[in-house]
Amino acid sequence: MTATYGTAQEATEHGTGDTTETTDAAVRGYTADKDAYLKRLSRIEGQVRGVARMVEEDKYCIDVLTQVAAINKALHAVSLGLLEEHISHCVVGAAQESEASGDATVVQEKVQEASAAIGRLLR
Amino acid sequence: MTATYGTAQEATEHGTGDTTETTDAAVRGYTADKDAYLKRLSRIEGQVRGVARMVEEDKYCIDVLTQVAAINKALHAVSLGLLEEHISHCVVGAAQESEASGDATVVQEKVQEASAAIGRLLR
Amino acid sequence: MTATYGTAQEATEHGTGDTTETTDAAVRGYTADKDAYLKRLSRIEGQVRGVARMVEEDKYCIDVLTQVAAINKALHAVSLGLLEEHISHCVVGAAQESEASGDATVVQEKVQEASAAIGRLLR
Amino acid sequence: MTATYGTAQEATEHGTGDTTETTDAAVRGYTADKDAYLKRLSRIEGQVRGVARMVEEDKYCIDVLTQVAAINKALHAVSLGLLEEHISHCVVGAAQESEASGDATVVQEKVQEASAAIGRLLR
Repeated sequence: MTATYGTAQEATEHGTGDTTETTDAAVRGYTADKDAYLKRLSRIEGQVRGVARMVEEDKYCIDVLTQVAAINKALHAVSLGLLEEHISHCVVGAAQESEASGDATVVQEKVQEASAAIGRLLR
Repeated sequence: MTATYGTAQEATEHGTGDTTETTDAAVRGYTADKDAYLKRLSRIEGQVRGVARMVEEDKYCIDVLTQVAAINKALHAVSLGLLEEHISHCVVGAAQESEASGDATVVQEKVQEASAAIGRLLR
Repeated sequence: MTATYGTAQEATEHGTGDTTETTDAAVRGYTADKDAYLKRLSRIEGQVRGVARMVEEDKYCIDVLTQVAAINKALHAVSLGLLEEHISHCVVGAAQESEASGDATVVQEKVQEASAAIGRLLR
Repeated sequence: MTATYGTAQEATEHGTGDTTETTDAAVRGYTADKDAYLKRLSRIEGQVRGVARMVEEDKYCIDVLTQVAAINKALHAVSLGLLEEHISHCVVGAAQESEASGDATVVQEKVQEASAAIGRLLR
């Protein structure tokens, strides 16, 4: 059990959602990259505003579409990052927990969550 | 040639981008729905801010992913609307123009723009 | 009205689907590239068989996934080609027909078909 | 370590690709559902042949597109199934192995493979 992949306790918390304020608030897989995610999302927000401005100024529809496609791509990169962190923290954490506890239920739960999230992205 | 599908002149302007005649500013296919597009984009901007807030508050990665997928879907709806308007205004306008002028070049140009835009969305 | 963009009559036939055998059977937009499409589809069929063989031989799941992604990409290229031809033949043909007849209904119909098809591809 | 989630040995084999021990051929995550996958792929192969037949018979482009979209959807379902099994077998197996060995390298490798595969599907 290493800090790198989170702890079994963390994995459980993710499932139940009880994030009772604790001193080690860093319970999420993406916390280490939190600033990077916030920066990316702020840039995406600016891109959306830019598209609104283009519509406001009656820019050519194809140019607007190109910008919308760029936003989609940026969001895909965010999704992929979050998914990778879900797998490397939540799934792996649950797997290691189950190894100790002998209960595989939590692992299946985390895997199915990942699978459902991927399915939503593919649609 | 009807107002519904734009005029040949409009179609040409789209290509060159010179929208200097400001009195008839309504040269874009999406202009009629401009307010609707701006409302939608403003809602999407709010959704992006909401995702940033979730990351800020260390929300569960899967819940963040669900919201990101919702933004992608909303952007797809915007893209689809813009594409439909490009086809029904720019392509159709160019087709009707070419019918009069006998020059099919502008039609091919508009069709290829549509096709390239669809390709960018599929990626 | 040129052979390049189909005839108004063709556009109408597309809508009703009555392909009563005629001497000029080349009524579809993709007919000129028919052999190219059949070759591509035959290659895709081979790719699907290849994936089945990989599963049969217990190949590594990630390698199977890579091949499935390649098939999806090949199908996207086919879809994009068909869409471009729908727009450049059916939509443009209907636009030119409506220019003569003054009836824009058929144009709207073709545009909406294109839009619905793009929507299905984005999902 | 349970049969349900594969063994650490399996996870290692996936990485190296040496599946020489043929008596226990059931080393892949999808092996249990192998017949189901083969049936699905055989149906997809038939769908591709059906699209070729539609092109051969000059069917309406939009109807061909609808069938191509259905194939894409069927392939997405296959991809999603394979991904879920990669995560629940290879990633989880590696996580449990690393718990015993203390070496997290193989876990990171499996997670990155999953992430790269998801990225290919999103494109």
